[in-house]
Parts: sequence; C-alpha cells; structure tokens
Amino acid sequence: MAAAHSSSDGFAFDWIDGQRRGREAAGLVRTLRPRPADSPLLDLASNDYLGLARHPEVVEGAARAARRWGGGATGSRLVTGTTELHTRLERELAAFCGFESALVLSSGYAANLAAVTALAPHGSLIVSDAGNHASLIDGCRLARGTTQVVPHADPEAVRKALSTHDGPSVVVSDTVFSVDGDQAPLSELSHAAREFGAGLIVDDAHGLGVLGAGGRGAADAVGLAGAADTVVTVTLSKSFGSQGGAVLGPARVIDHLINTARTFIFDTGLAPAAAGAALAALELLRARPELARQAGQVARALHERLVAEGLTAVAPQAAVVSVRAPSPHEAVRWAADCREAGLSVGCFRPPSVPDGISRLRLTARADLTQDQIAEAVGVISRTAPAGAFTAGSR
Amino acid sequence: MAAAHSSSDGFAFDWIDGQRRGREAAGLVRTLRPRPADSPLLDLASNDYLGLARHPEVVEGAARAARRWGGGATGSRLVTGTTELHTRLERELAAFCGFESALVLSSGYAANLAAVTALAPHGSLIVSDAGNHASLIDGCRLARGTTQVVPHADPEAVRKALSTHDGPSVVVSDTVFSVDGDQAPLSELSHAAREFGAGLIVDDAHGLGVLGAGGRGAADAVGLAGAADTVVTVTLSKSFGSQGGAVLGPARVIDHLINTARTFIFDTGLAPAAAGAALAALELLRARPELARQAGQVARALHERLVAEGLTAVAPQAAVVSVRAPSPHEAVRWAADCREAGLSVGCFRPPSVPDGISRLRLTARADLTQDQIAEAVGVISRTAPAGAFTAGSR
Repeated sequence: MAAAHSSSDGFAFDWIDGQRRGREAAGLVRTLRPRPADSPLLDLASNDYLGLARHPEVVEGAARAARRWGGGATGSRLVTGTTELHTRLERELAAFCGFESALVLSSGYAANLAAVTALAPHGSLIVSDAGNHASLIDGCRLARGTTQVVPHADPEAVRKALSTHDGPSVVVSDTVFSVDGDQAPLSELSHAAREFGAGLIVDDAHGLGVLGAGGRGAADAVGLAGAADTVVTVTLSKSFGSQGGAVLGPARVIDHLINTARTFIFDTGLAPAAAGAALAALELLRARPELARQAGQVARALHERLVAEGLTAVAPQAAVVSVRAPSPHEAVRWAADCREAGLSVGCFRPPSVPDGISRLRLTARADLTQDQIAEAVGVISRTAPAGAFTAGSR
Repeated sequence: MAAAHSSSDGFAFDWIDGQRRGREAAGLVRTLRPRPADSPLLDLASNDYLGLARHPEVVEGAARAARRWGGGATGSRLVTGTTELHTRLERELAAFCGFESALVLSSGYAANLAAVTALAPHGSLIVSDAGNHASLIDGCRLARGTTQVVPHADPEAVRKALSTHDGPSVVVSDTVFSVDGDQAPLSELSHAAREFGAGLIVDDAHGLGVLGAGGRGAADAVGLAGAADTVVTVTLSKSFGSQGGAVLGPARVIDHLINTARTFIFDTGLAPAAAGAALAALELLRARPELARQAGQVARALHERLVAEGLTAVAPQAAVVSVRAPSPHEAVRWAADCREAGLSVGCFRPPSVPDGISRLRLTARADLTQDQIAEAVGVISRTAPAGAFTAGSR
C-alpha cells in the first residue's frame, strides 16, 4: 500500500477531529459491529419483519437471478440496466399493491429522492411532516420546490400550509414512522391534500408486508391504492428481505420519473440478485398472507408485556415497538446489556431521532415464537435502567 | 386492483403532462428497453468494463453470499446491516486501492452523497468541476457548504476559487468523466488543493479496474492513493460487475462518515449477494491484472478505427469512447440503427449531458475480440448520419 504522504497533505480534514471529540464527550460515538453469519443472538433489531431474508426461497431467488442475469445490472436503467426481470418485478409489485405502475430503484433512499424531487418542481410547495425519514427530508432539500415542515401527524397544519400556496403542491409523509412505529393519519392527510388539489407522496417502507390486506401496505389499508393523486414509495430491504426501493403510482407519474428523476437516470439498475430475492418474497407473501397479520400480533404482544413490566412503550401500529430510555447513555448501556444477555435490539438516540428522545427500538418478526417473545421481554425488563420504569411499577 | 378514484383526485399531477408534451416535441422522450437474459446484441453500452458481470466466479460469489448471509442486510449498517462479509469487502477494497479504510454503501450515488455532504460542513467551500456526475452535483446541493462550480478540468480556476475562501474546503471531481471518457488533471488538482490546504474528493467510478497498476484506479496511477487529504469514491457496479459503492480514505475520515453521513446511516446495508459478487471480482482482478490494460487497449483500438472511418471521437483515457452525433434526433436514430444491426451502444443527449452535445457512448470491454471490434466499427460507420463524418472523409 503506497501512501503518498507529503509534508503538506495532512491538515485538510483536521476539522473533523473537533467533531469527533465532541461526539466522544457526549457519548454519541457510533461504531460498526460486524455480525457473523450464524449469530447466536435473538434478533429484535433488524427490519426483517416477515423473517424472509434468510428464507430458502428468497435466498434461492437471489442465487438464481445472479446465475441467469449476472452479478450486476451493468448500467443505468435507461441504457443496459433494465432486464426483463426488473420489468417483471415492477409489474408484480404494482399489481400486488394495487397501483398502475411501479419503478424499481437501487434503494428506498433513492426512491424517495426520486419521487420528491421529480414531483416538486420550481414554484411548487412541499408540505413535509416533522417526523419524516432522512431520505424524504433529503428529497425535500434537493427538490426545486419550497418546503414547509409541519408538526408531526397534524392534518390541520397540512391544510393551513397548503392554503397559503398557489401552484403545484405535494404532501409528504412516512406511513409508519421508523422510530416510534406510529402511523400517519393517512386518510386525513389525503383529504387535506385533495381539498387543495395537492398530490400525496407517502413512504411505506415500514408498512409494506405488514399493513393492508395480506401486507399490501398502508395505502391499501385506507383505500388509497391506485388513486390518481397518490404516490407510494416502498423498500425491498425490509419485509421483502432484499435490497432496493420502488415508487408506485399512476403510469404518467412513473413515466415522468423515468424521464426526470436523477437518482433513477444516473444510477446503475438494481442488481438482479436483489430483484430475484424480492420477487421470491412477494410470491411467498402472496401464498401466505397471514404473515402480515402475524408481524402485527407479535408487535402487540411485545408491547403488552413490556407495559405490564412497567416500561413505557408506544402502542405499535405496525411492527415496530419503541421503548423509552431515560437518557442516551442509559439507552446505549441498556442495549449493550441486552446483547450481552443474547438479545439484539436497536438503540436510537440523538442525533438520529427528531425529538431528541432515546429509546430501544424493537422490531417484531412474524416468525417469533411465544417463548422468544417471553425471553425478549424478560431480558429487556431485567436489564432496564431504574429510570425506565413508570412510577410505582417496581 | 382496487383503484380508489374520487372526483377530486385527478388533477394534482396534471402539470406533468405539459412537460411530457415538451419532451415529445423536442424528441427527448426516454423509455425503458427491457433486455432478455441472452441478448443477441454485441454489447458496447454497458459499464461492464472487464466483462466480469457474468463471469462464473462473480455470479457464484453472489449466490454463495446470498445463501450464507441471506437475501438482504436486514437493517442499517449501524444496527444489523454490517456483516463480517461487509467488513471483509471494505478491508480488501482499501488494501487493493492503497487506502487506509473503506466504507461500502448501497450505490455509488449514495457514496458520493455521503462523501461530499460529510466533508463539506456549514461554512466550507466546495469547488466542483462543471462536468461532474449528477451524484456529485447532488452531493454539493445537499451539503451545508457553499458550492462554486469551475470550468471543466481547469486547475487554475480551482486555485482561484480556493483563494477566495477562509475555512475548510474541498475540491470535487470525477477522475474519468462518464460522458466523454476524458480524465481530470488529477495531479494538478491535488497540487492546487494542497496549496490552499483543501481536501480532494474524486469519483473513480470509471477508473477503478481500468486505470492504475492492475486496475487500482486513478489515484494509484498518479501516486495519490493513501494520501491523508484525498478521498476516493468508487462503484462496485462497473468494473466489478455488481452493485454498490464505496468511499476510500484515511481511517479518521471513514470514521467521520460512519458518524455523520446520512446516506450511510439511514440506508439499509448493501445486499450480501452484491458484496459477494464484488469480492469475487476483486479476486479475479488481483489474479488477472492484465484485464485493466486490455480494457484500455480495446478502447484505443475502437477510437483509432472510428477516426480512420472519418468519425469524430474523443481520444479515450480510460474505457469510454465518445463519438459525436450531429443532433439529438440523429443520435437516437443512429443508436437505433446500430441496435437493428446487432450492436448495443449508449446514446447520450440533452438534458443528461452537461454541454448539450449529443453522442454515441461506446464502452470498451476487456474481453472484446478483434473481430468484435471490427464488427462494431463497421456497424457504427455504416449507420452513421452524413453529418457525423469530418469534412472530406467521404
């Protein structure tokens, strides 16, 4: 490894050391924790809601696609990167979710950037929920339109924002918010948008596979699937156990994205293996629609038992269960103690939470057994810091 | 497919129809052309520079990784999305390219957004080449720093821009520009950056696997690999025949990205199959370093013969050969005629080219034979519009 250091090349990035020291002082240093293929930990941290990421048919879907189509898509979707496999995935995804068309991108992040930037041109207004995912926020920042952030889950505030604007406008929201697992008031948001002729763009990353009939998603659940003014983004990396994202909507909107969305046009197409794995997951979900309901049941069971233990947890509306921690430091310690006791849980804390509240983030999986649920609750309760319990519960 | 149309939901996106009509009138409509697994076309359009995307070892690398690690990474790299496979890929990629550390993301696009936004904080200056890729441009737009766009490949203009700023600054450039295949003046850019204590961020998407000793990339070629003030982004979807991107740089910079880069923190980790395919491609390239040289040789042979035919083509500095077309319409017709004659070529035209010039974009593959090169040149020449030939050449 030839390192070409010269006397003058050492200081360009010196400013990052100050930020590092700030993180260290605040106890907010993030490090990667590589996991082995056969981790002994009970997983309540991944977004593999239906337990499909390691399902033999999903894995073979990936392997088969790689063999038939190659290791990569080899180019932009507009050049060589659209295979018949991509087209099939788009057709089946649109049909399953009840939309006219779908467009597959390399990630859910890219799908959100594509949808928001392409549908919020110069002169338009974007009304964005304060709790939205980073990728929607970055979409707003990249879009040529003006963004107005409104309080979390507040259709009245959306109405007020829309009433100030003349010209194209879109309302942008997660369907299920990643951190607390609460749902957006989707019907009310749609009514508010329609009153003002605004479009609705919702990110159903945590709804697809869990909400709606047989996991068809949040839009299906409230009768918005296929609506001419509604665009839904999804990810293939959560319930579908793969990688990638998609935009679902009217054919004319998808055609508009193909022609204008930079993260679609200037990115290599999704790898065939990821498309193949997602197609296999979709087939499994079609064959076993009860998986979606099971994920929700596991989440509610987890929540009930944690609350019974005296912990503060948000009632789950999908498959995410959020448990309050007293402080960032205690959250980190709590998660580490869980791991020590054989349980993998998510630990969300500033600056990646919009409200500054630290929490353990648990994800329900459709295939968790009653014993595993009991074990998880036992570990979480046993390792909880004193301040995590509600007054009088202990 | 239940479509929930109401009388008031039809017009939110009506404004896109005007844009569609504008594209149609200008002949700039883009459509997807799904390819079958066994296309009979000779491929000079993909970015599969080393011909590895369908190499049995790359394909098996993908299949093996899916079987061992699952169809997806299941979460953010900071939660469950870092496997030991990701760590191994990062270690081997850094070692191969001569950098201290590497960080793998789900795409090259995400890698560029991560590097630029994390290294250009509020108060900083970004000096960005006018010909940069869309993902670098979007990185500049998302970054908190101020961007100054400088003329293409102009180190003097970079100096002038840097001289106006007090505080952290970075110079941002492609190493090989995607459209024309020309190289940035990398040494001169580095000298200019160092004069002012600025960092250098370069996107080596089209250099990795083609430039440098055994394909170690553009930074290796000019002795910048491993420099403390240099950050290189690469993609795994071109020479490596897979999907994904990576940032290469000093360990402290990579650590900074892990803690601050939104497209790293809030994205699902790269699918194991893509990591496995990229690792297999890296091993193949290590074992057959001559592949890198061959891609360049094929590009130069293509260029020489096209010029001998009287066409105007840019002398290739990597594996991209750009051939001038007289107009967007003629470029589209030319590419279609090539396809009709069995040859797949890229067709770049406004608005996806920064200079408004339409061209056929050919990519050399290391495994193209002399016969295939001759066939390609014959088809391109035979189908060329009259205006594509230099005066007196016919």
